[in-house]
Amino acid sequence: MKTCKAMMATKPKLHYPNGRGRMESVRWVLAAAGVEFDEEFLETKEQLQKLQDGNHLLFQQVPMVEIDGMKLVQTRSILHYIADKHHLFGKDLKERTLIDMYVEGTLDLLELIIMHPFLKPDDQQKEVVNMAQKAIIRYFPVFEKVLRGHGQRFLVGNQLSLADIILLQTILALEEKIPNILSAFPHLQEFTVKISNIPTIKKFLEPGSKRKPPPDDIYVRTVYNIFMP
Amino acid sequence: MKTCKAMMATKPKLHYPNGRGRMESVRWVLAAAGVEFDEEFLETKEQLQKLQDGNHLLFQQVPMVEIDGMKLVQTRSILHYIADKHHLFGKDLKERTLIDMYVEGTLDLLELIIMHPFLKPDDQQKEVVNMAQKAIIRYFPVFEKVLRGHGQRFLVGNQLSLADIILLQTILALEEKIPNILSAFPHLQEFTVKISNIPTIKKFLEPGSKRKPPPDDIYVRTVYNIFMP
Repeated sequence: MKTCKAMMATKPKLHYPNGRGRMESVRWVLAAAGVEFDEEFLETKEQLQKLQDGNHLLFQQVPMVEIDGMKLVQTRSILHYIADKHHLFGKDLKERTLIDMYVEGTLDLLELIIMHPFLKPDDQQKEVVNMAQKAIIRYFPVFEKVLRGHGQRFLVGNQLSLADIILLQTILALEEKIPNILSAFPHLQEFTVKISNIPTIKKFLEPGSKRKPPPDDIYVRTVYNIFMP
Repeated sequence: MKTCKAMMATKPKLHYPNGRGRMESVRWVLAAAGVEFDEEFLETKEQLQKLQDGNHLLFQQVPMVEIDGMKLVQTRSILHYIADKHHLFGKDLKERTLIDMYVEGTLDLLELIIMHPFLKPDDQQKEVVNMAQKAIIRYFPVFEKVLRGHGQRFLVGNQLSLADIILLQTILALEEKIPNILSAFPHLQEFTVKISNIPTIKKFLEPGSKRKPPPDDIYVRTVYNIFMP
């Protein structure tokens, strides 16, 4: 019994609304690393207040992840910790730095996708054009060139890293809005298929996983209710 | 001669306009680590274009830092690399993660300061109030409590880290706008004095260093000229 309880206690617990937002990358990385996790969904302002009052949120914000006896906050810090723990951050400082740069660039693009449902309806269509341009002109050519250059399956060091996971998450989210976004990028198309077929990731992409659906009106309303003063 | 040239080649070179912006944290961390560096100031759109055309900017953006044969981009990735190299990232993964969280929180606050000069004049005063509130309610109490709790000079692990450096940078930048911002935080006052007196940092705070002055109209105009379409 005790062992069982101790094992259960080691499961990370994610605190966030029931939707993608800034937590979805954390779900992706845990899933890719083969780590099972629990989720406590924030639904009301009072639940957030309770976490804040109990000093569970270092800077009074979510995402927050209970893991290994810590209460981690700040999306990047959470991602870095999980990547470090599960060997998704390269074999040396040079690889680590490449992965870090690729992740930071991809997160800049992903941030546009995360904020999109909260724009005014008039601005949403314009923003899809902006996202597509940013992806096609600034970000995807970099990764296409990297993959073409070394001919390997993964972006860095010939093994799965945080950079591959966040890039795949971002590609799939963009494809939901712009289905042909990869049409000029054959190596990224191949990358998408291959990384999607890694068993842990394949499982995460199947129905019934903890992957969240695209944001809908209910999610947007819930977020406003929780976080707006 | 050759040795001298090789040594000179190892000096990092920073590419950014002649002002604080997102590069100032990099200048702070290099200075704190006792690393001399050169700067190439962007002044025109054509200079940026030249860097882009030469494939010197991974995602077509600055800050960019030439260091150890790499062309690093993305502010956080640059900071992480320098911190890793100069032992400013803790002694183990737990310390590293604390430092990472503290840095991420502080960078969220610093981002408000960085964007401030680019707001419309009417919004600038309101934003000073917002910054002060964020600092006093969300961020400073966390660091005050950490310092009070362990009674040490530094935030993490009893030695200088990236977290101390970025926090000091942010405190001093805020004090320029709101001189009494630390009045309710005695431990942060003491922290500010002590970290400012570390020899490398003390030197950076003296006139004639590569620390940049607060943004003025010329800086704002230069940034608009370079980066606006």
